[in-house]
Amino acid sequence: MILSALLTSVGINVALCLIFFILYSVLRNRPSNANLYAPRLVAEGKYQGDDDFSVGGLFSSFKWVKRAWQPSEDELMSNSGLDAVVFMRIFIFGLRVFRFAVVVGIFILLPFNYMGNQLNIDFTDLPNKSLETFSISNVDDGSNRLWIHFSAVYIFTAVVCYLLYFEYDYIASKRMAYFYSSKPRPGQFTVLVRSIPVSPGQKFSESVESFFSKYYPSTYLSHSMVRRTSKLKGLINETDKVYKRLVKVKTKKHPQKKYKRAGFLGLFGPRVDLQDHYEKKLEDMEGDLRTERSSVAGKEVPAAFVSFKSRFTAAVVSHLPQGIKPTEWIAEQAPDPQDVYWPFFSASFFKRWMCNIFVIFACIFITGLFLIPVLLAQGLTHLDQLELWLPFLSGLFKVKIISQVITGYLPSLILETFLSVIPPTMIVLSSIQGYIALSQIEKSACIKVLWFTIWNIFFANVLSGSALYRINVFLEPKRIPEVLAVAVPGQASFFIAYVVTSGWTKTFSAKLFRLKRFIWSYLKGKLCWKFDEEVDVPSNQYHSEIPRILFFGLLGITYFFLAPLILPFVLVYYCFGYIIYRNQLLNVYAPMFETGGKFWPVVHDATIFSLILMHVIAIGIFGLKKVPLASSLTVPLPILTLIFNSYCRRRFLPSFKGYPAECLINKDRHDHNDPSISSFYDELASAYRDPAMKPVRYSDTSESSSSPLLRGADR
Amino acid sequence: MILSALLTSVGINVALCLIFFILYSVLRNRPSNANLYAPRLVAEGKYQGDDDFSVGGLFSSFKWVKRAWQPSEDELMSNSGLDAVVFMRIFIFGLRVFRFAVVVGIFILLPFNYMGNQLNIDFTDLPNKSLETFSISNVDDGSNRLWIHFSAVYIFTAVVCYLLYFEYDYIASKRMAYFYSSKPRPGQFTVLVRSIPVSPGQKFSESVESFFSKYYPSTYLSHSMVRRTSKLKGLINETDKVYKRLVKVKTKKHPQKKYKRAGFLGLFGPRVDLQDHYEKKLEDMEGDLRTERSSVAGKEVPAAFVSFKSRFTAAVVSHLPQGIKPTEWIAEQAPDPQDVYWPFFSASFFKRWMCNIFVIFACIFITGLFLIPVLLAQGLTHLDQLELWLPFLSGLFKVKIISQVITGYLPSLILETFLSVIPPTMIVLSSIQGYIALSQIEKSACIKVLWFTIWNIFFANVLSGSALYRINVFLEPKRIPEVLAVAVPGQASFFIAYVVTSGWTKTFSAKLFRLKRFIWSYLKGKLCWKFDEEVDVPSNQYHSEIPRILFFGLLGITYFFLAPLILPFVLVYYCFGYIIYRNQLLNVYAPMFETGGKFWPVVHDATIFSLILMHVIAIGIFGLKKVPLASSLTVPLPILTLIFNSYCRRRFLPSFKGYPAECLINKDRHDHNDPSISSFYDELASAYRDPAMKPVRYSDTSESSSSPLLRGADR
Repeated sequence: MILSALLTSVGINVALCLIFFILYSVLRNRPSNANLYAPRLVAEGKYQGDDDFSVGGLFSSFKWVKRAWQPSEDELMSNSGLDAVVFMRIFIFGLRVFRFAVVVGIFILLPFNYMGNQLNIDFTDLPNKSLETFSISNVDDGSNRLWIHFSAVYIFTAVVCYLLYFEYDYIASKRMAYFYSSKPRPGQFTVLVRSIPVSPGQKFSESVESFFSKYYPSTYLSHSMVRRTSKLKGLINETDKVYKRLVKVKTKKHPQKKYKRAGFLGLFGPRVDLQDHYEKKLEDMEGDLRTERSSVAGKEVPAAFVSFKSRFTAAVVSHLPQGIKPTEWIAEQAPDPQDVYWPFFSASFFKRWMCNIFVIFACIFITGLFLIPVLLAQGLTHLDQLELWLPFLSGLFKVKIISQVITGYLPSLILETFLSVIPPTMIVLSSIQGYIALSQIEKSACIKVLWFTIWNIFFANVLSGSALYRINVFLEPKRIPEVLAVAVPGQASFFIAYVVTSGWTKTFSAKLFRLKRFIWSYLKGKLCWKFDEEVDVPSNQYHSEIPRILFFGLLGITYFFLAPLILPFVLVYYCFGYIIYRNQLLNVYAPMFETGGKFWPVVHDATIFSLILMHVIAIGIFGLKKVPLASSLTVPLPILTLIFNSYCRRRFLPSFKGYPAECLINKDRHDHNDPSISSFYDELASAYRDPAMKPVRYSDTSESSSSPLLRGADR
Repeated sequence: MILSALLTSVGINVALCLIFFILYSVLRNRPSNANLYAPRLVAEGKYQGDDDFSVGGLFSSFKWVKRAWQPSEDELMSNSGLDAVVFMRIFIFGLRVFRFAVVVGIFILLPFNYMGNQLNIDFTDLPNKSLETFSISNVDDGSNRLWIHFSAVYIFTAVVCYLLYFEYDYIASKRMAYFYSSKPRPGQFTVLVRSIPVSPGQKFSESVESFFSKYYPSTYLSHSMVRRTSKLKGLINETDKVYKRLVKVKTKKHPQKKYKRAGFLGLFGPRVDLQDHYEKKLEDMEGDLRTERSSVAGKEVPAAFVSFKSRFTAAVVSHLPQGIKPTEWIAEQAPDPQDVYWPFFSASFFKRWMCNIFVIFACIFITGLFLIPVLLAQGLTHLDQLELWLPFLSGLFKVKIISQVITGYLPSLILETFLSVIPPTMIVLSSIQGYIALSQIEKSACIKVLWFTIWNIFFANVLSGSALYRINVFLEPKRIPEVLAVAVPGQASFFIAYVVTSGWTKTFSAKLFRLKRFIWSYLKGKLCWKFDEEVDVPSNQYHSEIPRILFFGLLGITYFFLAPLILPFVLVYYCFGYIIYRNQLLNVYAPMFETGGKFWPVVHDATIFSLILMHVIAIGIFGLKKVPLASSLTVPLPILTLIFNSYCRRRFLPSFKGYPAECLINKDRHDHNDPSISSFYDELASAYRDPAMKPVRYSDTSESSSSPLLRGADR
């Protein structure tokens, strides 16, 4: 790619970003868009709209940037929880890393690259200059200037590791402070016990009762069994639909619409009063529900939520193996009630183990399958190859702007489209694995999406860029540095375009402007599909957001010394991201769960991986550039980084897995003197009932427009 | 190697085994050898010697075989502990595996191999036939007979996995039963706490006291600090020497020997009464000891043994992180007092972590260094190469018997000699890692020695057999099956010789006959070095024995379908081993510690590795033999084996890491009703005092011949 093509791509995207920015600033204050741009405020009743529109108003409407910038971390924490704070720390960490990287990369490495003569390009025609001129490929082979790159790699690694350590420490202490300041939450006092053994003549519920009251007599509080409720959930959904129709019929203004014919497609047969019809149907269904609910009470699954009077006992039960057979009485800390994932409640140890193995193979299969769209995208960046295959298009490719759009914009767009299918797929796979909490599923999916992205966007692009057979290289580890060193620098321009398209524009369009939702709500408004007026407050999709953000970090880190030109783009992405996500966390996303910052170790590991990848490429590049000494001297760097990582794992990771005895006991004693604790215990006893088991009476809830108790069952 | 050379080697070794067997049978009953062949019985006062010697006596002296065979597993358990039982289970498991392997290998695979024509050897001259005729190399390429080998691999894997599962289950249940039947032991009630944080104005001892009495007020019993006692230990050793000399002087019969001159080398100066001299010296040293002991009391290390009134609390403390900082208050279950390894008592988290990293690098270095003796040994098996290098020896090599001894016997002897240095080295490395128990050190060393053996005996031999550069193959995983398939079958004869020399003869000479000890005690008897008459009861050296036994298992499993000729030799080794080790466990070895069977997971993992290795070689061999379908169909086998292993890890491994809450609480309640528990608590409070800190008064112990309290400090 040449400089002018890059500039075209950047230009298109800057324009798009600007359009979305202005549109958002203007539209966000209109009350009709409140459900779209401030659903959280609406749901919390804090929304204050402003329908005025003037030029002065246009400028004042940019004030949201300031409002998103202003809140302190503590305010954000109290507003959106620790997870949101940790999520924003990714941006702060990225900004710190790339602030340093830009200074070193642009002001030191880039001039040296540009002054090289390896690629023999004359200095006159800057716009048509290949981007490679600015990369390490242009430095002369064997040149002493490469030692500057070598030092940069070492210093950069040291800086990143220092920042990683600092950040891990900071978040671990935040996590502890958060625990100390938190109110009693059911999850802290409860464990989920699975694989309850069958004892002859005893129900599971009796087994649980006798086991825990025998071994933990002083602190055992209560338990609630998990039941097979899939049929009940189906019934509830159906009833819910009928109920909604009834509400719709009731609120209709034209009396003639309240009747329909009872026969085929409502065209024949006697006319029926719809309200009567639905009311009768609803009554029948409620009867069915009651019957099913009482029969479900017998369908016990060998799993139960067991609550204790102290956090410490709950932690003890979840840490120590309980039963003699390690596959029975498997206990783990329970998630908070709203975080429990009811549908796939697999209880058997063996079944979950089999599912885990299945998921591993499924992930490998999906990763393999995804090579197809990657190859398609790569084909477009190599127009000459495409011309060979589709000669009738060559006339079209001669038009400069078209060829520039095709090489600069289309490939990343194709990738992006296919990639958007991945996070939901990974969520499904993670839920099959038998996690009990939405937060666990999301964390597991986050890791899967991350590795998928790194493999399929980074490696597949890099290696298929020239020839597919190179993927074989992973079976010959010795050659990896060399092959990567050849292939990675060549893809710099593709990844710059990727950062601009997928990073900048997509963040503006999809995250800030919520383009899809906007079009959808516009269509709804036009076509009067207005029966569903509930405010839909989304939650932050950590499993798709975090891997994206980390992937841009990986690009920045690996290309830091190869093609420093990418660094400003990554830095700008992090700046945009910081403001936009802060704004969205405050206005749009409501936290669905609270893990207490458990996503940070994923960020840490991904950064360490990026560093190691950079080192491996550096080893290869210095070898290729005929400075074998630098190549050998880089070898200790990944080893030192891994040692650093192993230290961090031991120093910080335990804090993210559970709380220490000291904290738990102190907190328990503190609560013990609190008079409100007995009412909390009362709530705790019924906190873990399956939402499907909670009775809802439709007959007299018809005044309120929604049935919130049912919503939980829809997940 | 040809068949006759193999037979020579087998002949020599059978003769040696027979000699050692007869010698042992004859000599074991003589009271003068009691300390050598039944030290344990002597120490326990159960020894009954028999000095008669006649031909009838010769036959009756073989009765020890029957006596070693007879005791049931429960008797062995009560006599030598669960570890000894688990150790013998390795032999039982090996016998079961190779009983099946011999039937399949010798009666099915061997005839098919022999009937092949691939190597074009005529059938007439059996003694000069290469051993390769009996291996898979002789089966015709692309022959359908290879499907028999293919099926054998699958069936054998299934059988081994079944036996592994059965054995793991059996030992896990034994372990639980052992725990239930055991008396209260200090280790069960105690944790070791390390990295006690420095709190201003408080000694470590006070910190520990306040921390545990604050958080575990109802069950905290006592603690004993660890102190820096290396100087004290030096003093005690010196004092011990002086004391021994004094005892020697006192017991001497000739009064003139009780004097020596005070000057240079005892030749000049005034004559001194030796008894007075030593008594005075001893008194001075005891004074020093007292001073040092009182000063040591202040030299606290930030580590302490903390005892509780219940096993459950001890388990809770060791499972749950205690302090807010994960690197402080690190608790682990304490070993029993006699199992504590006092010398390298590194307490700091950071120091132990650094030591761990150092040990990893040291292991890699030692493994690399060991290639030298391996190459030397390999040179000897390839006499033609040696003749090229040392032409003047070629005359010698022409003598048939010499060349056969050199190729058949010498290489494994050289290897064996160098290999004997490895276990002590690994013990030192493991002790540097900061383990607190001798049993942990031995287990860790066991794993190190095992991988070292597999790498340096198996892989280095196999790959250097033809050319050293092939070790590079591990950097190209794709080629591993192919290279192994070429190299491994060629080394079958070397490994048969190795089993016979190192397995048979060494077990007879070193384990049963205790050759080195025998020579040493014979020399002592001759040269009247009789001043040290203590009975030295050794313990079973698990870290050197288990890897040896497992390595023969690995050879048997990997060569099962390649060269079934090795199988009978391995089976015979396991038969011999079963009897000999049982005899030694009953008469010679006293258990030094009790891990409750924690060595079994090592055995399990090593067997799984052997299976995978066999599969990898099978994939390569079937490819080489031009049956690519069989090669591809073998690929699922290692994956299935790994899945089986992952299941076993989840199903059984937790039982070997700690005891479940159910058992601990039941056992605690049972003890609670036992009247003797209060006296046990009293003992517990002082159980974990450093042996160096226990006062010994030499002045009035001169009547007893040894000072047993000091012995612990010598370790």
